[in-house]
Amino acid sequence: MIKVGVIGCGYWGPNLIRNLYNAPNCEVTICCDRDESRLEKMKSLYPSIQTTTDQQVLLYGDLDAVCIATPVSTHYALAKSFLLADKHVFIEKPITHSSASCMELIRLAEQRQKVLMVGHTFEYTAAVNKIKEIIESGELGEMIYISSTRVNLGLFQPDINVIWDLAPHDISIISYLLQEDPITVNSQGRSHYNTGIEEVAMTTLNYGSGAVAFLHHSWVDPNKIRSMVFVGTKKMLVYDDISPNEKIKIFDKGVERPQYYDNFGEFQFAYRYGDIYIPRVEEYEALGAETRHFIESIQNGTRPRSDGYSGLRVVRIIEAANESLDSGGGAIPIISDIGAMMMPESTQEVIR
Amino acid sequence: MIKVGVIGCGYWGPNLIRNLYNAPNCEVTICCDRDESRLEKMKSLYPSIQTTTDQQVLLYGDLDAVCIATPVSTHYALAKSFLLADKHVFIEKPITHSSASCMELIRLAEQRQKVLMVGHTFEYTAAVNKIKEIIESGELGEMIYISSTRVNLGLFQPDINVIWDLAPHDISIISYLLQEDPITVNSQGRSHYNTGIEEVAMTTLNYGSGAVAFLHHSWVDPNKIRSMVFVGTKKMLVYDDISPNEKIKIFDKGVERPQYYDNFGEFQFAYRYGDIYIPRVEEYEALGAETRHFIESIQNGTRPRSDGYSGLRVVRIIEAANESLDSGGGAIPIISDIGAMMMPESTQEVIR
Amino acid sequence: MIKVGVIGCGYWGPNLIRNLYNAPNCEVTICCDRDESRLEKMKSLYPSIQTTTDQQVLLYGDLDAVCIATPVSTHYALAKSFLLADKHVFIEKPITHSSASCMELIRLAEQRQKVLMVGHTFEYTAAVNKIKEIIESGELGEMIYISSTRVNLGLFQPDINVIWDLAPHDISIISYLLQEDPITVNSQGRSHYNTGIEEVAMTTLNYGSGAVAFLHHSWVDPNKIRSMVFVGTKKMLVYDDISPNEKIKIFDKGVERPQYYDNFGEFQFAYRYGDIYIPRVEEYEALGAETRHFIESIQNGTRPRSDGYSGLRVVRIIEAANESLDSGGGAIPIISDIGAMMMPESTQEVIR
Amino acid sequence: MIKVGVIGCGYWGPNLIRNLYNAPNCEVTICCDRDESRLEKMKSLYPSIQTTTDQQVLLYGDLDAVCIATPVSTHYALAKSFLLADKHVFIEKPITHSSASCMELIRLAEQRQKVLMVGHTFEYTAAVNKIKEIIESGELGEMIYISSTRVNLGLFQPDINVIWDLAPHDISIISYLLQEDPITVNSQGRSHYNTGIEEVAMTTLNYGSGAVAFLHHSWVDPNKIRSMVFVGTKKMLVYDDISPNEKIKIFDKGVERPQYYDNFGEFQFAYRYGDIYIPRVEEYEALGAETRHFIESIQNGTRPRSDGYSGLRVVRIIEAANESLDSGGGAIPIISDIGAMMMPESTQEVIR
Repeated sequence: MIKVGVIGCGYWGPNLIRNLYNAPNCEVTICCDRDESRLEKMKSLYPSIQTTTDQQVLLYGDLDAVCIATPVSTHYALAKSFLLADKHVFIEKPITHSSASCMELIRLAEQRQKVLMVGHTFEYTAAVNKIKEIIESGELGEMIYISSTRVNLGLFQPDINVIWDLAPHDISIISYLLQEDPITVNSQGRSHYNTGIEEVAMTTLNYGSGAVAFLHHSWVDPNKIRSMVFVGTKKMLVYDDISPNEKIKIFDKGVERPQYYDNFGEFQFAYRYGDIYIPRVEEYEALGAETRHFIESIQNGTRPRSDGYSGLRVVRIIEAANESLDSGGGAIPIISDIGAMMMPESTQEVIR
Repeated sequence: MIKVGVIGCGYWGPNLIRNLYNAPNCEVTICCDRDESRLEKMKSLYPSIQTTTDQQVLLYGDLDAVCIATPVSTHYALAKSFLLADKHVFIEKPITHSSASCMELIRLAEQRQKVLMVGHTFEYTAAVNKIKEIIESGELGEMIYISSTRVNLGLFQPDINVIWDLAPHDISIISYLLQEDPITVNSQGRSHYNTGIEEVAMTTLNYGSGAVAFLHHSWVDPNKIRSMVFVGTKKMLVYDDISPNEKIKIFDKGVERPQYYDNFGEFQFAYRYGDIYIPRVEEYEALGAETRHFIESIQNGTRPRSDGYSGLRVVRIIEAANESLDSGGGAIPIISDIGAMMMPESTQEVIR
Repeated sequence: MIKVGVIGCGYWGPNLIRNLYNAPNCEVTICCDRDESRLEKMKSLYPSIQTTTDQQVLLYGDLDAVCIATPVSTHYALAKSFLLADKHVFIEKPITHSSASCMELIRLAEQRQKVLMVGHTFEYTAAVNKIKEIIESGELGEMIYISSTRVNLGLFQPDINVIWDLAPHDISIISYLLQEDPITVNSQGRSHYNTGIEEVAMTTLNYGSGAVAFLHHSWVDPNKIRSMVFVGTKKMLVYDDISPNEKIKIFDKGVERPQYYDNFGEFQFAYRYGDIYIPRVEEYEALGAETRHFIESIQNGTRPRSDGYSGLRVVRIIEAANESLDSGGGAIPIISDIGAMMMPESTQEVIR
Repeated sequence: MIKVGVIGCGYWGPNLIRNLYNAPNCEVTICCDRDESRLEKMKSLYPSIQTTTDQQVLLYGDLDAVCIATPVSTHYALAKSFLLADKHVFIEKPITHSSASCMELIRLAEQRQKVLMVGHTFEYTAAVNKIKEIIESGELGEMIYISSTRVNLGLFQPDINVIWDLAPHDISIISYLLQEDPITVNSQGRSHYNTGIEEVAMTTLNYGSGAVAFLHHSWVDPNKIRSMVFVGTKKMLVYDDISPNEKIKIFDKGVERPQYYDNFGEFQFAYRYGDIYIPRVEEYEALGAETRHFIESIQNGTRPRSDGYSGLRVVRIIEAANESLDSGGGAIPIISDIGAMMMPESTQEVIR
């Protein structure tokens, strides 16, 4: 039985607690928040849980692991203290606010032989894993173009901009699907409400394979959209995370060069339009799969799918995006030998 | 009665001819194309029309005006020859392939006191004019963010990239609505099918007023989307050009700062959600209004709404976008005194 | 503090318990089900709740009220026993399986001066109350036509047909909005999977005022639809219960007779198309409002909005629909003096 | 070369003329309308066409065939006169206003060995023929339930009700697909604007095979809907005629009896949800296929797909629906031996 503590009981923490309660071989013994009313709420929902406003209690308690669901700026210091106290650590996305601090956590976890996992929840959804299966089958052909739109109204974050808030989803999904890091990143954005905290941004990831990904993020769009388009050389796939029954659509469409047609030098590519296929996507709560994976990684001593390197990959790209955004939108390179470092030979290597 | 010739009878030319036929005080006397089968088709639809494969015939014929619907690369040379032959000239968008050539046409038209008009059709649609009315009423507040998605599958152009093909629509709409030029432009894109002819691109226009516009263009998207989002400080407006009955939606939504809430330093902006209003948009063919406006401008000796300067404004921004695209996506400035030049004091000044 | 017991902890009962727990002045002391695993589940969620498999325990316990969420066939006998034991009674819709048994419950509740309430949940939704406000303002004009589509796949009931299952929603909504009972009812249906248990049905309600309502119910439709159209003499309203942000749409459309046009005796009514307005609908859980209303009715000794007469009105129409369905679909009259009986002079009369 | 005349140049006639012009082996020599302005319009579009306001001119002219696109009440008398004058006859749907008059036309056409065809256009669409192919492959299983919604706002007919106007589409489609006639028909409706001319109606067709079809027709619905649902024992199919790219959707869904579950006698059918498949539907104008089929039937002396019997089948069901509507909505039988008469052994029998 893995004993787990949870720090942060605001928006996301209670979801973690609920899923950890349902995970096999796991016992949530304690939760921590500065706000006593949140702790009372947790106590009313889970009468057996201990509560505390003092994070030190988690350090010295009889815990195997700690889950961190606090604001991003606190991730690094909290995770470091828990790793030093020999706890396995799960951190909500983004893993930390800088690649330097993330790399330090990775090294520390390796030294202490502890699991370090980041909550890239989409890697545990049925839809994303179905898309991975489709891409790996070769059905779409070579990937040439990805476009993601993740916009809605409200839910401004006070301390991080819209890229830090929303891009971890897209980047972790694309990295998981393509198993490739971009070589350069561009980004433009704008802050109107909170100086220096961009609420809209458009980020471009350029890949060595030739693929390009456009990421559109906004907190000020009247419609809630969660849509990704994957254009391959053979087929196209649209992933609409909001659609209840049509999450994934595969379009048997493509572009074929027609014979040359000379009308003042004009010709057009043919428009090939074909069948559409909507595979069934199983419904389950991704967070349940994610929390079970954390517990199993601890039990089996295996590296989790969304490990520290996965977190680092996301943070590095977001850092580059922000650097581009702050310097006029030019291309910022992602240095490749660090990329190599981030791709350990075996992702299932025993770490204990 | 204004006698008009049309050059180019491929995709768009026949639409021009049909609308010119229905315009008052206008007579389409001749059409020209290199492809005889296109001319035969025109003859079968309009038995009284003369046809020719020789563009010289239009130069020396008894024509008041010529409409040019040929590939972009031919616009400048054709327009120049017709202006020199003292014809009024209408050119399909984009007006020319460079700002230098466009400026030369503007000067020539001014010297010859001829109408020079570009086919920015959206400026003549009921929807865009309704949006202009709404923005000018102050209902949306100050404009802070515009996002346009203009994507579909197929209809590749062989000689110009997706920005030259699709951005004229967005830029002419935004310029018409905001009456402001961007100060810098960024763009990223990718070409897979035709080296050097980008089929996807993401362009950002940064305005001195603080507004930013994101333009997403693609020829390789499985869905056809023609959607623009206008976010003002008071309200938001969505323009969906494909929706038959809900082209314009006004959202009484906004973001208001809530009281500070201290939960590990966390607080959130409130999500204010309100009524939605869908004004009726009259239905008519924009091209009809556009062609009538050309004829009226000739008759009244007035500067058309989408004149040479309007065409220049679009071309300069597209040039900057392509410059950015070719140099890593950094910000390319739009020089402001030329901007001033492009905004003549009176847009209704008599030119004859 | 009103002490409440709940009988039936299957699909709907747990929702009742959860909402009663949050209702002021209410204490859920006990729940009852034949299935011990359901009781254990309730105990795990609400550690302080007592559980029993013996409904007699509720009869003789220290309870003020009982909520019945068991299959329809058991409603009457259970409710009767609880009323005889001087408990206030809440019954899930439909109130009973026959108007005779319903009338007996009404009389019994009146004799014992107890609250008898039926769970017509839609009468407590924000959307239906917004529609009521709009209709009563006269904005739609006189109601001439209502169409309801309530279809989905699955969730077959074993003991009642699709009309008994789904029509209570539509009939209670329409009765609440129009405050009028139909004078005749027609219905056609079909059973394929379970002989005698129709899984599709089309029911027509004809009103003395001239209005007609079509109700389409199905358990075998690939799409889930919950849509009602209200056509008035002035405007039209569409209520889409599934849409997250556009639940109510008001169409400023209507039909106006044009001048007569003689073309082989042909003329057409003009098509008037106008603005569309989508009012904001507040979001809250209707079942919360409903359970609070039950508790308040007990405390204040007032007749609940969805009282026994409301339940009877629904049951009588469903009985007539089934009679029509069993006899070839002809019109079955709803006898009006019982209608009068069902409309007590004061619906806020003190009953204690 | 078949010489054809067209009578009626209002709403539909011009579409017939345009398609006949493009049909091989066909020459439209003359058109007739009481309204001279309509004739002038036709003359401007087709300079070679003769025009007349006198229908007698068509009787005695050098014509092989006549197409009738006038109001329904005039169909019978016109068609009879043309058949007696030895012309092949094409009539817009519904073929006539009564089954008696329709039977007389059938007999007359057989005596005179002339083609009698009715304009059931949907039988010539790509979508309906694709559905026919799918049904005949057995993919959907046995048909148990059809639901059609054909509603919009406006376009009231002055002389026929909404059933006569819209039901011919549904009935001809269903008859074409199922090759079966209903045994009874029910209908309810309502007229508000024009006494006796129902603008809304709900019609039920009951088939001997056990299938049932619900047809919902309305001229007063704010949304334009053209949707049919086909529920088979194996799969379900939705046909949305308005959707540009998703006209046909096949749902791999069904209902399976689960094991009995005893919770107060409660159990539920399982909800089986599977893949969705959207086959490509070729795009072409159905009216073009229909007019070519008319010309080919004349040339080859073959019975057209939508012949007089097809027209009679539709008229008989509409007559029954109106009889039901006028008598309280009860079931009206469709006498079966006439049904037999309407199904000639060979539908490709040579008639010349």
